[in-house]
Amino acid sequence: MDFIYVFELLGTFVFAISGMASAAEKKFDLFGGAVIGWATAVGGGTIRDLLIGRLPVSWMRDTNFLFAILAAIPVVYFFRKTILRFPRTFLWFDSLGIGLFTVLGLEKTLALGLDPAIAVVMGAVSATFGGVLRDLLCNEVPQVFRRETELYATVCLLGGLLYVLLGTIQLDFRWKMSITIVVVFSIRQLSVRYGWRLPAIK
Amino acid sequence: MDFIYVFELLGTFVFAISGMASAAEKKFDLFGGAVIGWATAVGGGTIRDLLIGRLPVSWMRDTNFLFAILAAIPVVYFFRKTILRFPRTFLWFDSLGIGLFTVLGLEKTLALGLDPAIAVVMGAVSATFGGVLRDLLCNEVPQVFRRETELYATVCLLGGLLYVLLGTIQLDFRWKMSITIVVVFSIRQLSVRYGWRLPAIK
Amino acid sequence: MDFIYVFELLGTFVFAISGMASAAEKKFDLFGGAVIGWATAVGGGTIRDLLIGRLPVSWMRDTNFLFAILAAIPVVYFFRKTILRFPRTFLWFDSLGIGLFTVLGLEKTLALGLDPAIAVVMGAVSATFGGVLRDLLCNEVPQVFRRETELYATVCLLGGLLYVLLGTIQLDFRWKMSITIVVVFSIRQLSVRYGWRLPAIK
Repeated sequence: MDFIYVFELLGTFVFAISGMASAAEKKFDLFGGAVIGWATAVGGGTIRDLLIGRLPVSWMRDTNFLFAILAAIPVVYFFRKTILRFPRTFLWFDSLGIGLFTVLGLEKTLALGLDPAIAVVMGAVSATFGGVLRDLLCNEVPQVFRRETELYATVCLLGGLLYVLLGTIQLDFRWKMSITIVVVFSIRQLSVRYGWRLPAIK
Repeated sequence: MDFIYVFELLGTFVFAISGMASAAEKKFDLFGGAVIGWATAVGGGTIRDLLIGRLPVSWMRDTNFLFAILAAIPVVYFFRKTILRFPRTFLWFDSLGIGLFTVLGLEKTLALGLDPAIAVVMGAVSATFGGVLRDLLCNEVPQVFRRETELYATVCLLGGLLYVLLGTIQLDFRWKMSITIVVVFSIRQLSVRYGWRLPAIK
Repeated sequence: MDFIYVFELLGTFVFAISGMASAAEKKFDLFGGAVIGWATAVGGGTIRDLLIGRLPVSWMRDTNFLFAILAAIPVVYFFRKTILRFPRTFLWFDSLGIGLFTVLGLEKTLALGLDPAIAVVMGAVSATFGGVLRDLLCNEVPQVFRRETELYATVCLLGGLLYVLLGTIQLDFRWKMSITIVVVFSIRQLSVRYGWRLPAIK
């Protein structure tokens, strides 16, 4: 589990950087940027914890997550231009991160005895609602809802379904998680590359 | 109670349809539409459950609500134009729905031993904050706050007060609920017909 | 503690007035204004209570807070113009209020056994996220995030740090609180007077 924990902290740090970098395009000060970074990094897990009643929410019980977010502030402040030169690296991290957060969110929901269908929804909420909260706090229409966005939440829902199905064949946790993350990562990358989108509701 | 349960599920389904249909005017994809439908249908009860600490929130403990929302997706996707031809039917369902949700939200708050004044507020929150959440997620000023909107939340607050008053004369639950729903329905319909509005705060 | 309680109720009343007065510039009706007043007055404490799992949230367990908010409605409705003639008085109340709410929010978080670093964050959330919720419900970018805003959340974070440091020298609660409120009040006033701002994140 130690490897997963390090990966989770690193994911939090990278999501916080990406959130703050996007806030920099707004007329925000450092505090505003930090809040947007916080929302992007732990907002999805926070909304999940609130809905399933796992309180206090995760990042409050382990200050390492707070420090991972705080550590992102000087990085964005001093190296923003350098960071923005590597969008593909961020896409990689993001695609890995949503796979990991989907699986962890799903497991935390199952651990409370809730239905697997609810757990799949909560996996996707964990992975994608940090971005929804970021967009709301920036007063923008959530990107993940828009038809211009490539497959994102859908990939997390599919990954969650796959993870639950793999559970029925008695697979080890590490295998289930690794397969799910690889599949989520691959579909997401292909979706960006080939511009796959969900149909508009209209 | 079975009749109430069926009515609650049907209300959830209809509110999800109306939410998704309004999301279709935005440039949302199917996932975005589903989230807006979800928010409209169970957002008010979710906010109530969070505030009063009834966790996990209602729709997580009974997957029928999730399936009622999912069932609305194909209906909106394939029959949107047909649906939009019956705005009065939706108004009827909505006026019935807010009465029902006011009473159920109020009862759930009282059941936790909270003050009747708080329960009246939570009844109105249950019935109307789904729409507030829908508007926030669509990046719009909540309709229910605007002076152009006919009596809506006010009707729920009045209905809640009436329900609490009826409780003091030892009336049966079914009677209290039926009377409240009829009164909420009637005032709401009259309010739309005659354009009754609250004064602006200014 | 009685003096603190009266001060807290008075702060709730004044914050509700200031929230409603700002809603009056929008095209809101009385219900919308009341919700904005409610969000401004108790929104920060509500978000804190949700995150730390202190449910039902504070204002539900003591109806005096509800009545303090309701009492603000006629005041704003009948005396809005008079109120707006005294912006400096509001600034004073606000600067005192955020100091008090920072300390109370911090103490409530520590009381649940959470880390002092988390408590400092929750102190600032208690004091400032009512305004964030107000701005979100009005469909505006939160003022406290913007680089045009003088030191606000930062003052609460500094006040929280000071309060925790004063705790290490075994100071009485009343002294710790009074010193923190005076320091928060002074820095906030100086910040407005001299236009102190945080650097932009960009």
